[in-house]
Amino acid sequence: MRSVASLADLRAALAQLPQGDAEAEAAVAARQARLTKPPGSLGRLEELVAWLGRWQGRPAPRLDSVHVLVFAGNHGVVAQNVSAYPASVTTQMVANFERGGAAINQLSKAVHATLRVIPLTLEAPTADFTVAPAMSEAEFIAAVKIGFDAVPPQADLLCLGEMGIGNTTAASALTAVLTGAAPELVTGRGTGIDDAGLAHKIAVITRAITLNHPDPSDPLDVLAKLGGFEIAGLVGLILGGAAAGIPIVVDGFICSAAALVAARLAPPVAGYLVCAHESVELGHHHVLAALGLTPLLQLDLRLGEGTGAALAMPLVDAALCILRDMATFASAGVSDSGA
Amino acid sequence: MRSVASLADLRAALAQLPQGDAEAEAAVAARQARLTKPPGSLGRLEELVAWLGRWQGRPAPRLDSVHVLVFAGNHGVVAQNVSAYPASVTTQMVANFERGGAAINQLSKAVHATLRVIPLTLEAPTADFTVAPAMSEAEFIAAVKIGFDAVPPQADLLCLGEMGIGNTTAASALTAVLTGAAPELVTGRGTGIDDAGLAHKIAVITRAITLNHPDPSDPLDVLAKLGGFEIAGLVGLILGGAAAGIPIVVDGFICSAAALVAARLAPPVAGYLVCAHESVELGHHHVLAALGLTPLLQLDLRLGEGTGAALAMPLVDAALCILRDMATFASAGVSDSGA
Repeated sequence: MRSVASLADLRAALAQLPQGDAEAEAAVAARQARLTKPPGSLGRLEELVAWLGRWQGRPAPRLDSVHVLVFAGNHGVVAQNVSAYPASVTTQMVANFERGGAAINQLSKAVHATLRVIPLTLEAPTADFTVAPAMSEAEFIAAVKIGFDAVPPQADLLCLGEMGIGNTTAASALTAVLTGAAPELVTGRGTGIDDAGLAHKIAVITRAITLNHPDPSDPLDVLAKLGGFEIAGLVGLILGGAAAGIPIVVDGFICSAAALVAARLAPPVAGYLVCAHESVELGHHHVLAALGLTPLLQLDLRLGEGTGAALAMPLVDAALCILRDMATFASAGVSDSGA
Repeated sequence: MRSVASLADLRAALAQLPQGDAEAEAAVAARQARLTKPPGSLGRLEELVAWLGRWQGRPAPRLDSVHVLVFAGNHGVVAQNVSAYPASVTTQMVANFERGGAAINQLSKAVHATLRVIPLTLEAPTADFTVAPAMSEAEFIAAVKIGFDAVPPQADLLCLGEMGIGNTTAASALTAVLTGAAPELVTGRGTGIDDAGLAHKIAVITRAITLNHPDPSDPLDVLAKLGGFEIAGLVGLILGGAAAGIPIVVDGFICSAAALVAARLAPPVAGYLVCAHESVELGHHHVLAALGLTPLLQLDLRLGEGTGAALAMPLVDAALCILRDMATFASAGVSDSGA
């Protein structure tokens, strides 16, 4: 697979995305119908394994190689006092990931997934987008390329994660522009700001949009002006995963905002995605509606790091175990309903 | 722990249920607050592990011994043609469980839980409750006792499951009487009947309630007249689990109807329960509201067997791994918000 060193490379990669394997999906559904349970009685688990078959292009899907990739970035807009935590926490948390002490470490271990953390120039944040575009074209293409190239070879499934103090501010700004919703409808409390902090955060986002006047019909323009390095990295990873035919489990609000950018660039991308959960962050609901995705879990999470994606993994795994290992009506001598 | 060989024994056991350990719960919450994440950011996972601590009575809860218990029973009301499958499927599915071919076998294995299937006189169904009460007092006490005595010693968590062709009819009848809802509001398609079948099922339930006139204020009367052996077994297991201080994950509609009977007998029982998922079956929503429980998952399941409970187990396990293994702000050198 070619990398994406320029906008032209990126557009070329997007034009050639695999469209999914309808035959593999049908083979999964045919086997599902023979298993010893009423047709459809496992609801979304049945959809999940059909999705896995379609986008892996395998009638017998597998989950031998599952990867959690966490992109970390810093945000110039933190200077505007939009977060409950100082920007230094991004670097501290990356160190915590590397020592195995964060929530995503425990969850990756529990689901036997390989965790990789990819910090993107934490010492050099994006520009404060209340005074200038967050990234230059060269900067965001570089971040997208890092994500695109981070797709692990032979992976069966990717789980997305992120860390970046200030990145709900960026995700809310992206969401407002890409969905057309007013900033106050898509801005939440992030790691935990109070009412005054929330009003201030909404004002900061409104100011950033006015200053940068991004073009809503050009997702790369919106991303460059209002995104962050980790969000650009996630966009690259999603596009790279889709180009390599690997299904992707999206985490919360920030990852979903990246997914929306990717899906606006190349609509078939939405097919590769399962949304793990719906976050407490207000904007997430709008992003999910724009993506046309229904989350698997609603657990009032708002941590990020890929925690929701890792928590959804056992459901995907369960769906696969059932398809692979259950008896059929014929093999078990169980009477079918004749339905 | 004494068994329950009579109604008097049962009432004595219910009067002495442990009330939960508030100190253990507070110790869990105190540790949770020191972990390297914004307070509350793991939402329901934080509630789950506090619940585990409270009802296990341990500041450091554990999940070393998790059991899935599936009760199976047959229903005389199947003679009224209320199911898409013949009654013989109950026995066939029990054989399938024993050979490891059913959905719950794969899911129990995936979550490292011990699966036990407990058939209750499958060759002798309950009476057809459109013509007589489903069970005599001796019969239902015997079934409750089997459940009460089935609590595995030293278990850390119980997952409930059931199998019984016709048992959504029984659960809908119980739900209508215990919640006061009209039968048409709490009756669904079970394993997959059509519109005419559904109208017939509602008529059958209405007839059964009219004939038996159970006393809604006497849950044992309602259970005996409209329940089933596996439902009585589940009631016994729930009460036995609570008496032994073991938290319980409830599966779908039938298990929840049993939980509602148990909670009406002894209100503290609801504290021991987590509801795994909300089923497609209409009545489940009413039962959950009556129990005051919010389900963890909404996956459009309608299989039973304990599948939803087993699917929720990784969430409980994840919540525990996080509490036990995450770094604290102090140990990781991460700046706190000061919140």
